[in-house]
Amino acid sequence: MKDSKNIHLDLNAIESMESRSRAHLINSLSGFKSANLLGTKAKDGSTNLSIISSAFHLGADPALMGFIIRPDVSPRHSLENMRETRLFTLNHVNEAIFKKSHQTSARYPRETSEFLACGLSEEYLDSFHAPFVSEANIKFGLEMLREIKIEENGVEFIIAKIVSIYYPQKSHIADGPIDLEVAQTVAVSGLDTYHLTKKLARLSYAKVGQELKNIP
Amino acid sequence: MKDSKNIHLDLNAIESMESRSRAHLINSLSGFKSANLLGTKAKDGSTNLSIISSAFHLGADPALMGFIIRPDVSPRHSLENMRETRLFTLNHVNEAIFKKSHQTSARYPRETSEFLACGLSEEYLDSFHAPFVSEANIKFGLEMLREIKIEENGVEFIIAKIVSIYYPQKSHIADGPIDLEVAQTVAVSGLDTYHLTKKLARLSYAKVGQELKNIP
Repeated sequence: MKDSKNIHLDLNAIESMESRSRAHLINSLSGFKSANLLGTKAKDGSTNLSIISSAFHLGADPALMGFIIRPDVSPRHSLENMRETRLFTLNHVNEAIFKKSHQTSARYPRETSEFLACGLSEEYLDSFHAPFVSEANIKFGLEMLREIKIEENGVEFIIAKIVSIYYPQKSHIADGPIDLEVAQTVAVSGLDTYHLTKKLARLSYAKVGQELKNIP
Repeated sequence: MKDSKNIHLDLNAIESMESRSRAHLINSLSGFKSANLLGTKAKDGSTNLSIISSAFHLGADPALMGFIIRPDVSPRHSLENMRETRLFTLNHVNEAIFKKSHQTSARYPRETSEFLACGLSEEYLDSFHAPFVSEANIKFGLEMLREIKIEENGVEFIIAKIVSIYYPQKSHIADGPIDLEVAQTVAVSGLDTYHLTKKLARLSYAKVGQELKNIP
């Protein structure tokens, strides 16, 4: 990038941007994001499915995940269901379903299930209350522990515990991680752009004074 | 994946895993993650640089980012500096510097600057207190607004406001987003695996009853 001029935006320039352009820009700034389908079922049996791109690793012991829900947009019905039942699923978006998954972000009415509207299939595994996405390769069940209102902008920060995990045997790596490329998981950038990935390297644990090695 | 057997782990199986394997597994579960270098400078002038993979979009108006710091591991000196000065930078890890960036996760002593130890260069832009990473293509300055202790596992959740943004002119897309592939930004999976990406598609805003279009 030595040959490229930089754009510089100071706080005033950021705050003066047209709001849709700013949403695109700021959504790009964190870097690549996860793409997960959030599956819920209300007590009355109606189901809901929403794509979220904010799920992130919160801790391994206990196994916790965090993510954000904006109460004013699509996943609000999901949040209502989670408050009712505490249980929900996350399902990795993969190459085969990224368009159907993106479509779940449309503002369907309360009584419409995005599973049906977007052509994805409910799957019930091991008596877990909430629906998994049959077409997802990596999926896990969670229990909502807590929600924290972020006063700065009114979004809800959700803390949840991972209680059940399903992933393809052939994506399992011997010492623990999942090979997300084998499972065809996609990454997201900004509000609307989906990517496959190509591994550069897996690197050894970093130690002071030791050179990093590639792990095959 | 129809031809692949699934692995199923229930809560008991998750809790019984060897801790390093569980860390690898649970770190893989959220999906692809962002890779950012967190740059700070203490009041005494000493600098610090730490790779983080939990930065996520928290809101566009105001422009907010969230991320996690584990006080028991590497970025603790960064957290001390942030508490002192409130100001810090985030810098996208790119293909040219992903190994040096990974090395910043080693447990260097307080008085060692990871910039120097890992071969990355401090850059001071427009009188901002904290150092940017010269080798990064996308970088932004932030002001820490608040930290929230996550009682479930003792990590700190940081909420920060984006106050200054730098990115290459040629990665700018007309309606707002940044083309992260042009900027050579990498994605991370698990604890240690780095990926380039290949765009599948940019999709139009999803609306009920309308077919999605590819945005060129």
